[in-house]
Amino acid sequence: MQTDSYVIKVNGSPVHPKILDFHVNILRPNGIENLKTRKPRWAVRASEMSKKTFNPIRAIVDTMKAKPHPNKPMIALSIGDPTIFGNLPTDDEVVRAMKDAIDSQKYNGYAPRYQCSREVIAKYYTCPEAPLEAKDVILTSGCSQAIELALAVLANPGQNILVPRPGFSLYKTLALSLGVEVKLYNLMPEKSWEIDLKHMESLVDDKTACIIINNPSNPCGSVFSKKTFAKNNRRQCVPILTDEIYGDMVFEYGAFQALAPLSTNVPILSCGGLAKRWLVPGWRMGWILIHDRKEIFGKEIREGLVRLSQRILGPCTIVQGALDHIMKRTPQHFYENTINFIKSNADLCYNTLATVPGLCPIQPAGAMYFMVGIDMEHFPEFQSDVDFTERMISEQSVFCLPATCFEYPNFFRIVLTVPEEMMVEACRRICEFCAEHYQDGDAAQDLECDK
Amino acid sequence: MQTDSYVIKVNGSPVHPKILDFHVNILRPNGIENLKTRKPRWAVRASEMSKKTFNPIRAIVDTMKAKPHPNKPMIALSIGDPTIFGNLPTDDEVVRAMKDAIDSQKYNGYAPRYQCSREVIAKYYTCPEAPLEAKDVILTSGCSQAIELALAVLANPGQNILVPRPGFSLYKTLALSLGVEVKLYNLMPEKSWEIDLKHMESLVDDKTACIIINNPSNPCGSVFSKKTFAKNNRRQCVPILTDEIYGDMVFEYGAFQALAPLSTNVPILSCGGLAKRWLVPGWRMGWILIHDRKEIFGKEIREGLVRLSQRILGPCTIVQGALDHIMKRTPQHFYENTINFIKSNADLCYNTLATVPGLCPIQPAGAMYFMVGIDMEHFPEFQSDVDFTERMISEQSVFCLPATCFEYPNFFRIVLTVPEEMMVEACRRICEFCAEHYQDGDAAQDLECDK
Repeated sequence: MQTDSYVIKVNGSPVHPKILDFHVNILRPNGIENLKTRKPRWAVRASEMSKKTFNPIRAIVDTMKAKPHPNKPMIALSIGDPTIFGNLPTDDEVVRAMKDAIDSQKYNGYAPRYQCSREVIAKYYTCPEAPLEAKDVILTSGCSQAIELALAVLANPGQNILVPRPGFSLYKTLALSLGVEVKLYNLMPEKSWEIDLKHMESLVDDKTACIIINNPSNPCGSVFSKKTFAKNNRRQCVPILTDEIYGDMVFEYGAFQALAPLSTNVPILSCGGLAKRWLVPGWRMGWILIHDRKEIFGKEIREGLVRLSQRILGPCTIVQGALDHIMKRTPQHFYENTINFIKSNADLCYNTLATVPGLCPIQPAGAMYFMVGIDMEHFPEFQSDVDFTERMISEQSVFCLPATCFEYPNFFRIVLTVPEEMMVEACRRICEFCAEHYQDGDAAQDLECDK
Repeated sequence: MQTDSYVIKVNGSPVHPKILDFHVNILRPNGIENLKTRKPRWAVRASEMSKKTFNPIRAIVDTMKAKPHPNKPMIALSIGDPTIFGNLPTDDEVVRAMKDAIDSQKYNGYAPRYQCSREVIAKYYTCPEAPLEAKDVILTSGCSQAIELALAVLANPGQNILVPRPGFSLYKTLALSLGVEVKLYNLMPEKSWEIDLKHMESLVDDKTACIIINNPSNPCGSVFSKKTFAKNNRRQCVPILTDEIYGDMVFEYGAFQALAPLSTNVPILSCGGLAKRWLVPGWRMGWILIHDRKEIFGKEIREGLVRLSQRILGPCTIVQGALDHIMKRTPQHFYENTINFIKSNADLCYNTLATVPGLCPIQPAGAMYFMVGIDMEHFPEFQSDVDFTERMISEQSVFCLPATCFEYPNFFRIVLTVPEEMMVEACRRICEFCAEHYQDGDAAQDLECDK
């Protein structure tokens, strides 16, 4: 094997060339006597942290070997990206704001110069019950980094966080990579995915660093209703991380209730961004809103967040420059159109699938997702939701994510942002698929026994 | 003190309202008997990692209490952002590329859809000696994240990395936050900041995860010359992380030599981005080029980098969409104009300060910085470079970063991208400042004795 290395010199011409030659063994205290026989060797290993950074969706999806049916065009209901099919462009005002920011040449520099965008976000989200100032806003590269930094500042390795089940897989991915344990609290499908508070409470211990609440929810499309957030004067001592990236994306006008205004003492880091409501997930404009009216987080958490956010210097400054215009001038009908479109697909999907024997769709109230239960005993051919969705690809070219990706077997998730005609066709094929594989009670039993 | 908490309910109306009430002590195995007397209390602390994330520049600069001289407008030669004064806009083709990408509405989605931008970067940087394909490119949110991910994949807590002294403070900031030790290898000012290879070699041990080489250098403005990179067939076993964000920004045409083409076996992660050469540091478009022709990094490091990069989903997709146009159509004269401007300021600065008793400017060959040595014995009034630069603010309203920020006392750094008239005025004031405080050998001695 040919090997080489090289000499590095900088401008100037040294008399004696030096050789850049790192023998990793050379400096071992007791290695000197072995120098002639031992050959330096390469042993570059990936760090433990990189190994612990694990995306369960990828892990599951990558094992699904199914190929779409050759005679049916593929319909992907799997990807939580509303921009894929081109049917949901962002608003013209958002486009204009960006182009103005670029033309101005005023937003090319490092982010710390554009503190004004913190002010813009604070003004947009402030309310009398949960007032915000620029200092309460941390800018991040998308909501993913908001969640990453919020977790990184709150939790030490060895601590735990509480995460909803079913829930967005990123929480676990990030926590495990930080050496933080994850405890899953249940959402209850029979109660429109209400939190099982008793279960949640039972999981809290003295190592619990925070509780993650995702409202509206991915993958459930559920929304905590305003009425049922009831104030109470009991005291709790675990900070909350709310993922409100689907905030305001609810089918019933005004039904979204941000968490922060409901308490005056619980410290909350609220994560959000432009991604979903403004239909630009790739732009990576995210933020953390620090709600800490009793100064429980105090200086330490604030300063920690600022320091962590300075590692990679925030989101693209062009988007920051456009933010004021985007937030002030995006017309109301843009948001409404998006919601109406998603709601219409949700209704279509629910009305169709609710009639299908063996499926239990749970009606969503917001976000852009829809969970469908599979009565596995009526589909005895399939071992699991992964198996079920895999066969739906190969037979019907319809790709839904198995909810095992969200720690919730025997369900699958449908993304509701695809064009209506695609939604209709996908539902038709799902019906066909289920009709072909459904076995009623006895038949299922028989087939079970034949095994 | 008023306290409260709240009930969380989701859509649906439970019969028995439940209370979300986390008493962190409740679940302690032996705590039951104390329940009535022990009050739950808030104790939210920032994580160890957030505390270890430490920016030395901020720490030093924030302690400098000097206010600018009231009669002299401030001239900041401290901030490594070429866009501050508006004299260095990016090229019209770059602006056009961005506006086209926005108008197309094709680049609003999540980054994994735009793998084409990896291809664009690979094609731009590939060369026969160090060929690159799309799979060798990892997209990052700026060069800072490139360095963060490269370190995160290569180093475990308890390992060490080698970092240049003087050097960019981010390396240390990121390493320490990951629990990785930093060893500083010397650059030699008397040899135009050539690496002290003997010193570098002496620092390598079996815990050395990688060596960082920054070329051209911040803060030195030095450039490793092509001739003096000499191939050698000795073998080394430490991977290299090159920070080449100032790549091609050299005063002598063709003088920049990327590191990767000089070796066929050393695995190299080369970090770069649009920030400096295209004058858009805020846009946060960065990348890692994986050079691993002997497959020493292998699948493990590649996959680790991909996994780490998926945590926050890469740079803004609008910039990704514009990248092909930016790299193909930015005219040569744009790069040349930038370089000529910086070189002209460097010459101006050098020619002026070289005549100043007590200062030892070291001529740069690229990047956008300039290091000036302070003969401290001739400035006995000042304790340190921090003291010196602080007084330069209060007396002359000229702000240069003390090189203590770069682990290199008794120097200060000048940023060369300010408008020429500002550069001239700043140099004039620096001369005046030095003339006022310079003490020749004997006088300095006297003053020293008077203390």
